[in-house]
Amino acid sequence: MALTGVLRPGHIVLRVLDLDEAVRHYTQVIGLFETGRDDEGRVFLKAWDENDHHSVVLREAEQAGMDYFGWKVDSEQTLDDLAVKLEASGLVSDTRWAPEGEQLLTGRRFQFTIPTGHRMEIYATKKTLGCMTGYDNPDPWPDGLRGMAPSRFDHALLYGRDIDANLTLFRDVLGFNLTEQVVGPDRKFLIGVFLTCSNKAHDIAFIRSDEDNRLHHASFILGGWHEVLHAADIISKRDVSLDIGPTRHGITRGETIYFFDPSGNRNEVFSGGYIWYPDRPVITWHDTEIGRAIFYHDRKLNEAFLNVTT
Amino acid sequence: MALTGVLRPGHIVLRVLDLDEAVRHYTQVIGLFETGRDDEGRVFLKAWDENDHHSVVLREAEQAGMDYFGWKVDSEQTLDDLAVKLEASGLVSDTRWAPEGEQLLTGRRFQFTIPTGHRMEIYATKKTLGCMTGYDNPDPWPDGLRGMAPSRFDHALLYGRDIDANLTLFRDVLGFNLTEQVVGPDRKFLIGVFLTCSNKAHDIAFIRSDEDNRLHHASFILGGWHEVLHAADIISKRDVSLDIGPTRHGITRGETIYFFDPSGNRNEVFSGGYIWYPDRPVITWHDTEIGRAIFYHDRKLNEAFLNVTT
Amino acid sequence: MALTGVLRPGHIVLRVLDLDEAVRHYTQVIGLFETGRDDEGRVFLKAWDENDHHSVVLREAEQAGMDYFGWKVDSEQTLDDLAVKLEASGLVSDTRWAPEGEQLLTGRRFQFTIPTGHRMEIYATKKTLGCMTGYDNPDPWPDGLRGMAPSRFDHALLYGRDIDANLTLFRDVLGFNLTEQVVGPDRKFLIGVFLTCSNKAHDIAFIRSDEDNRLHHASFILGGWHEVLHAADIISKRDVSLDIGPTRHGITRGETIYFFDPSGNRNEVFSGGYIWYPDRPVITWHDTEIGRAIFYHDRKLNEAFLNVTT
Amino acid sequence: MALTGVLRPGHIVLRVLDLDEAVRHYTQVIGLFETGRDDEGRVFLKAWDENDHHSVVLREAEQAGMDYFGWKVDSEQTLDDLAVKLEASGLVSDTRWAPEGEQLLTGRRFQFTIPTGHRMEIYATKKTLGCMTGYDNPDPWPDGLRGMAPSRFDHALLYGRDIDANLTLFRDVLGFNLTEQVVGPDRKFLIGVFLTCSNKAHDIAFIRSDEDNRLHHASFILGGWHEVLHAADIISKRDVSLDIGPTRHGITRGETIYFFDPSGNRNEVFSGGYIWYPDRPVITWHDTEIGRAIFYHDRKLNEAFLNVTT
Repeated sequence: MALTGVLRPGHIVLRVLDLDEAVRHYTQVIGLFETGRDDEGRVFLKAWDENDHHSVVLREAEQAGMDYFGWKVDSEQTLDDLAVKLEASGLVSDTRWAPEGEQLLTGRRFQFTIPTGHRMEIYATKKTLGCMTGYDNPDPWPDGLRGMAPSRFDHALLYGRDIDANLTLFRDVLGFNLTEQVVGPDRKFLIGVFLTCSNKAHDIAFIRSDEDNRLHHASFILGGWHEVLHAADIISKRDVSLDIGPTRHGITRGETIYFFDPSGNRNEVFSGGYIWYPDRPVITWHDTEIGRAIFYHDRKLNEAFLNVTT
Repeated sequence: MALTGVLRPGHIVLRVLDLDEAVRHYTQVIGLFETGRDDEGRVFLKAWDENDHHSVVLREAEQAGMDYFGWKVDSEQTLDDLAVKLEASGLVSDTRWAPEGEQLLTGRRFQFTIPTGHRMEIYATKKTLGCMTGYDNPDPWPDGLRGMAPSRFDHALLYGRDIDANLTLFRDVLGFNLTEQVVGPDRKFLIGVFLTCSNKAHDIAFIRSDEDNRLHHASFILGGWHEVLHAADIISKRDVSLDIGPTRHGITRGETIYFFDPSGNRNEVFSGGYIWYPDRPVITWHDTEIGRAIFYHDRKLNEAFLNVTT
Repeated sequence: MALTGVLRPGHIVLRVLDLDEAVRHYTQVIGLFETGRDDEGRVFLKAWDENDHHSVVLREAEQAGMDYFGWKVDSEQTLDDLAVKLEASGLVSDTRWAPEGEQLLTGRRFQFTIPTGHRMEIYATKKTLGCMTGYDNPDPWPDGLRGMAPSRFDHALLYGRDIDANLTLFRDVLGFNLTEQVVGPDRKFLIGVFLTCSNKAHDIAFIRSDEDNRLHHASFILGGWHEVLHAADIISKRDVSLDIGPTRHGITRGETIYFFDPSGNRNEVFSGGYIWYPDRPVITWHDTEIGRAIFYHDRKLNEAFLNVTT
Repeated sequence: MALTGVLRPGHIVLRVLDLDEAVRHYTQVIGLFETGRDDEGRVFLKAWDENDHHSVVLREAEQAGMDYFGWKVDSEQTLDDLAVKLEASGLVSDTRWAPEGEQLLTGRRFQFTIPTGHRMEIYATKKTLGCMTGYDNPDPWPDGLRGMAPSRFDHALLYGRDIDANLTLFRDVLGFNLTEQVVGPDRKFLIGVFLTCSNKAHDIAFIRSDEDNRLHHASFILGGWHEVLHAADIISKRDVSLDIGPTRHGITRGETIYFFDPSGNRNEVFSGGYIWYPDRPVITWHDTEIGRAIFYHDRKLNEAFLNVTT
């Protein structure tokens, strides 16, 4: 009981145009730590408070974007059970079991494509390195932090067409909960859905878009609003391309800043939000208030935010 | 899946020596909102971001302390199942079904006494009032906040003798997880256990003590370290009795301040901590480092903190 | 010695289109306190930590903007001396002695028009009300705060043509210091000058513009970056027109948000900056870096910021 | 005009028992930067936002404490004028002109002993290194910060007997202003005086004590309350001896933490406070409220704070 099933976003595999430049960005600007490279040259990274070997994987490619997104589940048994349920759901395609070790230091994974065309996987086992403060009389934060220094990879926002089917998949098959939604007139049309598998306000989110399989952003969590300012300063000090922020989201209440990695993949670092519970009503944002929903202070969307995805 | 079973601390029923004074403290100093009174004069309160009718109940009595602690579970079915498991566990005593409505606007409750002598209950249903920002295009915080303005009642720390049996009860019967522990020499002796039923670093904690059924503190969550300072200032402005703080806990990493209500019940407001997952190792604090574990900056315990309970 | 001569911005007199609406804005949104009204209906306001009777005066008029700006000097003797120096400088026009009491509860004032066409005055005496925490065993902040709750009126930024002459006037006649400047190619052309009469990074600033006698913004000081977020939230909660922010200035390092009063006068609330000393070199921003100078994170100017003045 | 005469605390020369240990403390824990050593092995340090070559000097000695305290004045002319005034005042003893270069990279200095036995000096010239962000299109903070990373040396608090004479000296001869005072019954007896030569709430402070020529603490300024927490965490991570904090002062409103260097000299890092002006009334704290005056949250003095000086 308590927290079971799908535990959290386990890893995101990002395509980058220049690997060295990307590694510099994710380690020096964001402040992740490189934990390994595989035979194909992919670079594995983790944040300081994460226990597992990696949460971000970078692959050099011709085009930026997300290769796939992995969810950690609580046990091999859950992995098997969810694989059966996913197959039976009729909502996923191109299912495949990836054997242990095909991803560096990671157990077997069940892969599938969701209705919006994004490739995802579930897995139960990954080598652990421990968080950087350790588990014996730990300090509250480790020495050696650099850059924005998020404690964890937190979530992603993905764009695609059939987000209704995604909602069904994540809620009814994978056991997620809908925390917030953006709706069109008469609440009849879903523009965006925010889903959690935990106490967090979101672990994954989908926005309706004309094009499938798009990444809007990969997000990392900070310790507070002063760390958002610190991140904003770093963005300017290092001439990183800023999208928008510092500001607050209406949705999730998070304090946020968006920027781009050197390949054009959007990153977010954020703090705050609320403690979500399954008996809390879904929060509904109406399309008339979508500006305030996304950027609470500006109350209007910028073009880049809506249209630039990878 | 995801978050199931026992959801969270649902309510704490506190005994206070002077009801009016207590209501003033919990509403004006802490900043809860009174939501109702029952026939016996008990006062019901909630924090601004809570959905349910109450999370704190005040009862006037000869002696301060905690009457009982209630856990909200995810469904009536879970309530029934857990009641059976609790009965079967042999770890609880004086079990009783309280009928719907016996507690104001609350459904049926299954009551029991845990090994350390504290009275607890589980329930699945309570009237909802909604959080103060509502669920349609909500603002991030409501007008009308006052005092320290915590968003939620968060947890309690209880003192008693057989905390080993408590650990078994909460972990094996109620599905909690052990997040942190304080141990004696050779890790052989449990001095304190911190347990979660969620992503939070703790939902309940027990410290070993010579006396059973003691309340160390009831804790409320704030939005950040600057709100801990604001709370500290209020403590002094209103001549509230301070225990210790502002400071940081080693355990949970939380930023904290402790103080006393007018009856001598200890309160905490805190912020921060980490996002816990079931695959994270238990953090162990050794008795040699207990000062740093409790008060990370001072690295020593004050007498009041150890010995004053209600 | 120490701090002498011109002490600080003493008051700004703003024209507003609808007095009631303006009073609501300056008292409920910004959080100043109304301290009086004069025979002509002007409304006098002060911030909570200010000792004198008023720092902002609102006058209903057909057109928004600034009537005049007042500087408090350290003594009646200084007032007389500076009046002589101003007359002798040849840099000011339309000089006039306003008798005691012509401005509510304010002593005699020496008025003049500066090269950029703005009306200013110096004065030495104003009735004191005391700051809201008092001067005997004061608390760090008073009860009754509301809105953004700045502690003081801090500075104004004005637009006009001959800012070189303004620089000479403020530096050589009034004893200000140049803290930062924005310059054109080869440092030959002044685009902006930031001037202090204290330890603050600026007490007044001028930006070169095609039109004289324009107000860019009146600014109030907050206690930190978390108060900038609080102000930003209030802006959205109360549907105030936002200009830009939260963000940071390159110039002065201040953390800031800009918005408009209901008449279109721009307001700023900000925090931070540095402690300035007269032996610190002037900071120079080159026109090629003007975006970063003004908005450090965005590194580009928005149209409204440049062109909207009153 | 504006800021003239004595500008600021220019340097403090501290005696330390082990130079290497002290350098590690002041550079790695506090985060000053070593800028030079002289022939006698003294180590010169500055904070990142300071323009001049040094603000802290460490000298190895048998006994901890303060050798002397230096004030920077605005010009050589002021230096000469103040030297004459000091001689004429009858309030200082053992006056001496130290020639240029006797202190590393520092101009001629006029030295004197104040009524409480502390050795002080004034000087107008010191080699400048520039602040670490430079003065051309500067970033708001530099790379390479470490430890608590204060921006400046801010003030010292000294203990001695005749603080009335000190008050006369600093106010009437050196042009300081009294900002706050702690008084005995009937306001007849000065327990403490807080003096400024700027807009800051204090540049020097004296507390009455039975013993002359004692150093209570040397203080450095941080950017906000979150940096006080960061400093507190560093204190514990590096096993530095904590005195008290994080907390708030009633006097000056500052947010603070006190700790000891390895030789037992007390350090403070703090943030906040108010903007002081010469027309602001003196704040008076009554001895009955001295606890709240010093430590606003605890409202009681700890023994170490009162009695441990060097």
